[in-house]
Amino acid sequence: MDGRDKPGHDGLRCLSARGMTEFASDSMVLPHHHREPSCGTMNDAKTPPMSKESAGNFFEDFKLGQEIVHATPRTVTVGDVSLFTALYGSRFAVQSSDAFAQAIGYPTAPIDDMLTFHIVLGKTVPDISRNAIANLGYADMRFLKPVYPGDTLSTTTEIIGLKENSNRKNGTVYVRSTGGNQRGEPVLAFSRWVMVNKRDESAPAPEPHVPELIAEVSASRLGHALPRLKLGAYNYALAGSAKRWGDYQIGDKIDHVDGQTIEEAEHQLATRLFQNTARVHFNQHIEAQGRFKRRIVYGGHVISIARALSFNGLANAFHLAAINGGRHVAPSFAGDTIYAWSEVADKAELPGRTDMGALRLRLFAVKDRNCADFPGQKADGSYEGGVVLDLDCWVALPR
Amino acid sequence: MDGRDKPGHDGLRCLSARGMTEFASDSMVLPHHHREPSCGTMNDAKTPPMSKESAGNFFEDFKLGQEIVHATPRTVTVGDVSLFTALYGSRFAVQSSDAFAQAIGYPTAPIDDMLTFHIVLGKTVPDISRNAIANLGYADMRFLKPVYPGDTLSTTTEIIGLKENSNRKNGTVYVRSTGGNQRGEPVLAFSRWVMVNKRDESAPAPEPHVPELIAEVSASRLGHALPRLKLGAYNYALAGSAKRWGDYQIGDKIDHVDGQTIEEAEHQLATRLFQNTARVHFNQHIEAQGRFKRRIVYGGHVISIARALSFNGLANAFHLAAINGGRHVAPSFAGDTIYAWSEVADKAELPGRTDMGALRLRLFAVKDRNCADFPGQKADGSYEGGVVLDLDCWVALPR
Amino acid sequence: MDGRDKPGHDGLRCLSARGMTEFASDSMVLPHHHREPSCGTMNDAKTPPMSKESAGNFFEDFKLGQEIVHATPRTVTVGDVSLFTALYGSRFAVQSSDAFAQAIGYPTAPIDDMLTFHIVLGKTVPDISRNAIANLGYADMRFLKPVYPGDTLSTTTEIIGLKENSNRKNGTVYVRSTGGNQRGEPVLAFSRWVMVNKRDESAPAPEPHVPELIAEVSASRLGHALPRLKLGAYNYALAGSAKRWGDYQIGDKIDHVDGQTIEEAEHQLATRLFQNTARVHFNQHIEAQGRFKRRIVYGGHVISIARALSFNGLANAFHLAAINGGRHVAPSFAGDTIYAWSEVADKAELPGRTDMGALRLRLFAVKDRNCADFPGQKADGSYEGGVVLDLDCWVALPR
Repeated sequence: MDGRDKPGHDGLRCLSARGMTEFASDSMVLPHHHREPSCGTMNDAKTPPMSKESAGNFFEDFKLGQEIVHATPRTVTVGDVSLFTALYGSRFAVQSSDAFAQAIGYPTAPIDDMLTFHIVLGKTVPDISRNAIANLGYADMRFLKPVYPGDTLSTTTEIIGLKENSNRKNGTVYVRSTGGNQRGEPVLAFSRWVMVNKRDESAPAPEPHVPELIAEVSASRLGHALPRLKLGAYNYALAGSAKRWGDYQIGDKIDHVDGQTIEEAEHQLATRLFQNTARVHFNQHIEAQGRFKRRIVYGGHVISIARALSFNGLANAFHLAAINGGRHVAPSFAGDTIYAWSEVADKAELPGRTDMGALRLRLFAVKDRNCADFPGQKADGSYEGGVVLDLDCWVALPR
Repeated sequence: MDGRDKPGHDGLRCLSARGMTEFASDSMVLPHHHREPSCGTMNDAKTPPMSKESAGNFFEDFKLGQEIVHATPRTVTVGDVSLFTALYGSRFAVQSSDAFAQAIGYPTAPIDDMLTFHIVLGKTVPDISRNAIANLGYADMRFLKPVYPGDTLSTTTEIIGLKENSNRKNGTVYVRSTGGNQRGEPVLAFSRWVMVNKRDESAPAPEPHVPELIAEVSASRLGHALPRLKLGAYNYALAGSAKRWGDYQIGDKIDHVDGQTIEEAEHQLATRLFQNTARVHFNQHIEAQGRFKRRIVYGGHVISIARALSFNGLANAFHLAAINGGRHVAPSFAGDTIYAWSEVADKAELPGRTDMGALRLRLFAVKDRNCADFPGQKADGSYEGGVVLDLDCWVALPR
Repeated sequence: MDGRDKPGHDGLRCLSARGMTEFASDSMVLPHHHREPSCGTMNDAKTPPMSKESAGNFFEDFKLGQEIVHATPRTVTVGDVSLFTALYGSRFAVQSSDAFAQAIGYPTAPIDDMLTFHIVLGKTVPDISRNAIANLGYADMRFLKPVYPGDTLSTTTEIIGLKENSNRKNGTVYVRSTGGNQRGEPVLAFSRWVMVNKRDESAPAPEPHVPELIAEVSASRLGHALPRLKLGAYNYALAGSAKRWGDYQIGDKIDHVDGQTIEEAEHQLATRLFQNTARVHFNQHIEAQGRFKRRIVYGGHVISIARALSFNGLANAFHLAAINGGRHVAPSFAGDTIYAWSEVADKAELPGRTDMGALRLRLFAVKDRNCADFPGQKADGSYEGGVVLDLDCWVALPR
């Protein structure tokens, strides 16, 4: 851990009434900072009776230091890549073309980093967040190795913190999840904290332990998933833009222009493709009784839409190197049209290489409102109307 | 044929008014037993005029002993596997991971058995059931060989029985269909009987011939599609459950917990993927005039949802070895949320092997109602509200 | 160019009020003949402010003789083939089965010609038609080389004509686009002309130059994408029909019988799969304010549905050799049910080969009306109710 990494517990913030409770239930939620457990509220959707095996874990089932091997390893294929393209329309040349990728030194086109993320995360849902009432945050998410069609991904999770809430009904579970390939090499790692119900309120509280969480990934720790590249062969016309790392400045705001309307079938296909079983995304029979009366779009679906739209203006930023954190400011539903824009928050060199550089982006997704006026966060910390995602990430592009 | 196999003609039963007529028209319908032709009613949807080539066969076109080679061989690929995952969210480790499958002795991950079924069945629709007014039943369906991406499937059908109905307007056609791979090896075989309209009511009736149908596949005939396995390398944590064959008892009821809401785009994508051309699933212009005013979901789609949900509680039952029969109790439509539960109806050893065992399951799919109270069949043979599928099948899992 | 090729500027025709303006904006529109620019009207949907990079080209940005290399090369995979099958349900044996294709001399199953078209066209949208107010026509579209999974496609375009309109607000841009594979071999080429807005009305008009456009591809120029075949191994039963080239006569009308209802998720998945970014297909937030109040289905989606339906009656016409032109007579929307029929307009031998022959088809797509009575074009040039597509193409099939 390097000097730029700062613990993430400063600046704690509660969300407003339009909080992250139900819609966050099994969705991915990425606040910039750890929220106080008291910000979470109960998910009042009834959990149907189930056998213990399928019920997932409750707060008292987790033990500090415990390691969980999640079910269902998954071989990623060109079929997944095609579906990813059909779902998001991503156009980054490196991930779209074997010929392009090979020209610059990849053995073949790597899969989109968000596809890796979705698959690795999806495996954790049955064990970690099935009984979550809020996904409180992510931190220190780094992509560590390119993933190619044919690789098999699986996920393991270590319990790195536990803190029961004063209401005795639930508590926060802090985990570190790692996705690995068939050779046991880590491809993605991230910390996450979720609020989980207790099965039995009278179960004794564990010794509270809150781990230090990293609020931002220092640039010195980026780039592990980038092989040596021969960027002399990088064709900027085919890539869609001549703009390189040096052409972006801190403070640049980039409207990603296009909008994508979400359909129920689309987010369901996506979320099942990732073998993510969170019922809020699939079960209208239950959700019709819930707070929103409808299925909630998987938060990662919105991130992938925004990331795909960011090709407009960031066509060469083909690699997502890290996610520092983020926030699902509001839930998304079928029928919403998602727009996006980015602000360049920082620039950094990548350790030991002169070919590629990193941009730290604040990527906003906004619904039913175009981003020509860059709707974002207000001075008081609240968000302008329509903002659904505020993501803090590092991308890499040729210098 | 072994002593446990019983002819299926005992216990004939008519369906209630909520019968299998229109919704069954081109859908897969699996009654436990052969129904009397008089249970069927006419499909009053008008058949548009068409050239003979596309019109399919009418009752008088079928001849006893006739063999039909169905159109459009189909190479199954990892693209199909990805779509299958996106459509159903299946999580069985053997079918999801090449690495897992190879560890236990498969050359690579086999495709889901239901994918094999859908493709093999789909080819028969234009020739066998285009003019069907009811799919009356299936019997003796056995999976005979694993199918891998790259295999090419095609289907042939033998006419094994014909019986004109007393109304002279239609009759029952009994067929035996076999799906084979590019080496001519059978991968799946099943008997099926459908009620088909006559083109010309005055056409002479054939000599009636009703074949003996097998009501259940004896355990001694199971397991042909299971290669030798090295189950010492079977990783139960990655598979999602420690429960093996010995952990299930006859009479066990298993709630599969989750529910999946069906969208029009989803069942249409699925059914086209299988090159199944039954118009009731695709043509709202016609169906708007029909009994249900809307498109009917392909019955096999519901089976695949239920099978995928059954991972909750049956995570190691990765192989569907046989379908004895079943019943589509009611049609399903877009907007329905499908839940499922299983009862262990029987247990059996598999011939010549000590590594894997078989469970006979009665797998129910239920719409818009969770299965915590196991809604099924009542004593009078009718079904509790919401039941849409009652499937009798054999699955195999490690001992 | 051969004597049968005729320039396409005779018979210019304006469309009626139900014209090709908004719905054509980014959709594929294929009039038989070049329309006068004055037939086009302004697209009154507001273009959101955007950075120049993402804004696409305006009329004054194009220069005669300019060559544009379009972004995002695309490796086509079996995943794309599976999605294509799921989207359209195509059943041509050559494209469906590696075993079938290999038996007749292909190295493996080629991809559907329409999939090639969609991918090659999609790449041109951001540069050529983003600011188009009408896609006026296509001409001389020929398939030049089979495309196989693993091939990488990219597209280049030459500006072959420019003519400012008298209103000074926009003009017609004539282009010749060529899709090539990773070896630089052209696989598809076509001419196209679109009406494009000026950014600045005061920008000077270029020297007007209208290229000669070929109204029909002569048969002598067909067949380049057909390898030598061993048609002795062509299995007509597996292909689905015994009808060969010699069995069709000029004037034959063929009802393709089935209908397909379009869903929003389907056309969006398709259009994104092709990396076509035209916003009219994806952005309900904008389209709700537009003339039709809803998203417009990509015109190519309708062509692919019609082509897939044409299997009924033309099962052996597995290769689309050329598109002479066509017309999107009316826009299509989600909820429409598409039927199709064909008329055999011409027959021709293919140069230098006796195994395969060509049929020139007029392929009509019709919505919410079956094609038993062959609804088409009236004597006055207008169309019967429901007609959405009038496509003039050459297909090839065994003799």
